[in-house]
Amino acid sequence: MQLLVQRVDIAGRGAFIHEEDARRLGVFDGDRLRVLYPETGKSTPIVVDITTSLLTPGTISLYNVTCTDLGLGDGDMVEVHTAIPPSSIRFIRKKMDNGRLTAEEVLTIVRDMVNEALSLNEITAFVTASYINGLDIDEVESLTRAMVETGEKIEFAGHPVVDKHSIGGVPGNKITLLVVPIIAAAGLTIPKTSSRAITGAGGTADLMEVLAPVNFTAEEVQMMTDRVGGVIVWGGSTNIAPADDLIIRVEYPFKIDERGQMIASVMAKKFAVGAEIVVIDIPVGPTTKVHTMQDARRLAQDFIEIGSRLGMQVECAVTYGDSPVGRAIGPNLEVAEALSVLEGAETPNSLIEKSVAVAGILLEMAGKAQRGEGEEVARSLLASGAALEKFREIIAIQGGKPDVRSSDIIPGAYQAEIPAPVSGYVVSLNNSGLVTVARIAGAPHDKGAGIYCNAKIGTQVRKGETIYTIYAESQELLNRALEEARRLYPVVVEGMLLDRIPQDSIELDRMD
Amino acid sequence: MQLLVQRVDIAGRGAFIHEEDARRLGVFDGDRLRVLYPETGKSTPIVVDITTSLLTPGTISLYNVTCTDLGLGDGDMVEVHTAIPPSSIRFIRKKMDNGRLTAEEVLTIVRDMVNEALSLNEITAFVTASYINGLDIDEVESLTRAMVETGEKIEFAGHPVVDKHSIGGVPGNKITLLVVPIIAAAGLTIPKTSSRAITGAGGTADLMEVLAPVNFTAEEVQMMTDRVGGVIVWGGSTNIAPADDLIIRVEYPFKIDERGQMIASVMAKKFAVGAEIVVIDIPVGPTTKVHTMQDARRLAQDFIEIGSRLGMQVECAVTYGDSPVGRAIGPNLEVAEALSVLEGAETPNSLIEKSVAVAGILLEMAGKAQRGEGEEVARSLLASGAALEKFREIIAIQGGKPDVRSSDIIPGAYQAEIPAPVSGYVVSLNNSGLVTVARIAGAPHDKGAGIYCNAKIGTQVRKGETIYTIYAESQELLNRALEEARRLYPVVVEGMLLDRIPQDSIELDRMD
Repeated sequence: MQLLVQRVDIAGRGAFIHEEDARRLGVFDGDRLRVLYPETGKSTPIVVDITTSLLTPGTISLYNVTCTDLGLGDGDMVEVHTAIPPSSIRFIRKKMDNGRLTAEEVLTIVRDMVNEALSLNEITAFVTASYINGLDIDEVESLTRAMVETGEKIEFAGHPVVDKHSIGGVPGNKITLLVVPIIAAAGLTIPKTSSRAITGAGGTADLMEVLAPVNFTAEEVQMMTDRVGGVIVWGGSTNIAPADDLIIRVEYPFKIDERGQMIASVMAKKFAVGAEIVVIDIPVGPTTKVHTMQDARRLAQDFIEIGSRLGMQVECAVTYGDSPVGRAIGPNLEVAEALSVLEGAETPNSLIEKSVAVAGILLEMAGKAQRGEGEEVARSLLASGAALEKFREIIAIQGGKPDVRSSDIIPGAYQAEIPAPVSGYVVSLNNSGLVTVARIAGAPHDKGAGIYCNAKIGTQVRKGETIYTIYAESQELLNRALEEARRLYPVVVEGMLLDRIPQDSIELDRMD
Repeated sequence: MQLLVQRVDIAGRGAFIHEEDARRLGVFDGDRLRVLYPETGKSTPIVVDITTSLLTPGTISLYNVTCTDLGLGDGDMVEVHTAIPPSSIRFIRKKMDNGRLTAEEVLTIVRDMVNEALSLNEITAFVTASYINGLDIDEVESLTRAMVETGEKIEFAGHPVVDKHSIGGVPGNKITLLVVPIIAAAGLTIPKTSSRAITGAGGTADLMEVLAPVNFTAEEVQMMTDRVGGVIVWGGSTNIAPADDLIIRVEYPFKIDERGQMIASVMAKKFAVGAEIVVIDIPVGPTTKVHTMQDARRLAQDFIEIGSRLGMQVECAVTYGDSPVGRAIGPNLEVAEALSVLEGAETPNSLIEKSVAVAGILLEMAGKAQRGEGEEVARSLLASGAALEKFREIIAIQGGKPDVRSSDIIPGAYQAEIPAPVSGYVVSLNNSGLVTVARIAGAPHDKGAGIYCNAKIGTQVRKGETIYTIYAESQELLNRALEEARRLYPVVVEGMLLDRIPQDSIELDRMD
């Protein structure tokens, strides 16, 4: 990609001062100053960076945003004084020293994170210390409440408010596109805020975006949900639990997801929308976040405990995470698959079963079905076309085309069918291999990119039969995805030599 | 203090790109891009920040320094590609998960720190993880070697090269001003790099600066030391162990000083100057870094072990850290006190005894004195005037006035004598209280600011007799220091009511 260079003043926080002034003030790199603009009477604390080369003694470089906040222009004079660090620094240090934080201390840290009184470095220290020393259940509760308190909340007219969340790690997990319309069709309120893929091939927000806009404010989410009973939007446009974004930002380079912070992150988003009934989907498998049933049960207990402390009814669904849900991976492919089920298709089985199972639990919890009958009620809402009808209302209210059909959603024009190298049973679908290949093919940005699994685990295939198909929106990305596929073998047929697939055995088709 | 606002492009690393381009590239906040300028063929990895407001899609904001490095100007086009994170990220994660790092892994982390391949956030995670999970002796050795390898080294003509270091925490510890000239006068080579005060009232570099410039390059340090046998300079101007500055930068807000990192920091600086014989001064006391004799011995063992692995002979002097060394605290006051001892004064006892003890150990280790006779040899180098003569050579070669006398160094003109509120024995000199008052009075920036302890522990005083004197360079700072002194009671006389000292009992004198 080519980009035009443009030198601009950048946003951010902090300031540069000359080393001489720093010594006069007695401050060091990372210390805080309070900058006061006497003309406007406005002041703000800033973290200083010290330089000897960028400016002359007697001057201060302030970022644009700070200047705008204080009403400052070039050449204005400001008063600066040393400022004491916020008390949250002391509480972060306490967590570094393996102390237990009180609710008050956690709230102070989270508030200072959101108010930008803490630098990203300092937030990193907090997250690292929490990751290493752990957060106990009281601290997780405090963190959840603090995240809610420092962000926006939504109140809905319809009750009960129900919600679902999957902790992730399984490709093709498009069940939200089925669960939300089923639940809303049952007359319940389900304001689903969802995420975009970070390391996956398509988050729920990426999928829904194929059908309708997903960027809405909290107020818009409230209005739309109250109108039709449900929405599927991107959580990032609301200001719900903004501290969570900061935590994710500093965890990101290290690919960590501290258990307590993860629970707080999920539960804060549910609590902020007033959810009363919640199901958490915990996929278990070697490539998901939770590797054993035992770990899943322990995690489920914590979710349920935090829910009960916050007055939410929480149940957890421990699900199979070894291979993709359904056959499609990547935005358009997944949306077409979900829509086809809403339209009445009876496959793929794994998608339908998981969707009605999760929806069924919610229906039972909300009293819309007897114990043990939730799944049947969900299935009939699907079969009757009520869920499809509701999904069209949701698409319409979010500004999409309600009359869209699954056959309208077409995958990328460049595709390659991967043949079975030997005859035998499919014994393994490697989640991370499939996601890597789908991402290299362009997903989630290229909505048409992805993978369709022609065979799933246990399928008997003959040599030369297609086991999966890669889709892309350009020949170049398709070629790159193919190279990676040859290296990763994301689908394994029993007895197949784990050797290079000969290049001439792969057919490259151009669809149109 | 008033400063002129000036909006400037700032230095640093990283780049801003628009969210749309970030999604197209598949990168998130904190991910890395490689930016290539085809015209010059130069490229560099950068960490991206994502924005929706600062620029339009298709553009990239690069910091000045990056532009200069690549030869870029406004309006030039660059190629950007996603870049994989450096492998040091993985090793930092390993330390977060309480793994033991190999020498190779530690070197990779330290090299990436110095090369700016790691962001300050990522360095914070490493330092926090090392602080919490600790570094074992092998890791400390690796860290020491890595710090040396990634910085400048100095080789001296004269041998053996000897060095001393105090791990700090005791006010008034000006012994380096005596030890260096004594050792150099004995014909040994002692290239002393020292620090400025961070939380103290005067680091050795702040003191020496009263007499001569202290900012020199490594090459200048080498030349000056080879000429006169010793120097006392600020370590920050050399590029010895630059990784240490980064570690200190991120530790600073939390006032932590991880034991392994502290040992590596000290030993790397000694190893980089080729020190063969080293004494480490470990002050023990309630307000120093080491609180018990047992902790001091354990720390000493680690210093000795790392020294032996690096081929350095190390001994440790565990010293009394409960109250100040000598009577003076603050640059001018301390320098005058040290100079007066070199000129032949026989007090203060604690300063002379500690200086000849440390110098004596070095003389014995270097074979300049028999075991048990080092202190005597040190004392005679002091008494003969040889140390004073050598100190004058050092001052001269660093560009100061060699004929300076202790009486030339005068304290701040604004001073207040604090009277004993009752008659009795002085029972406590509170280190941190004394330092706080000295700093509020202006030390170490205002060279004349500080405290002179007229009475020390065990001194019998009568009510109204001066127990200590505060010096400042302005009435305002003197007043502020007095207020703090009334609150902190840094000197306690037995039987004294820990109540406010009545304001009219304090005499405010203007000296000139």
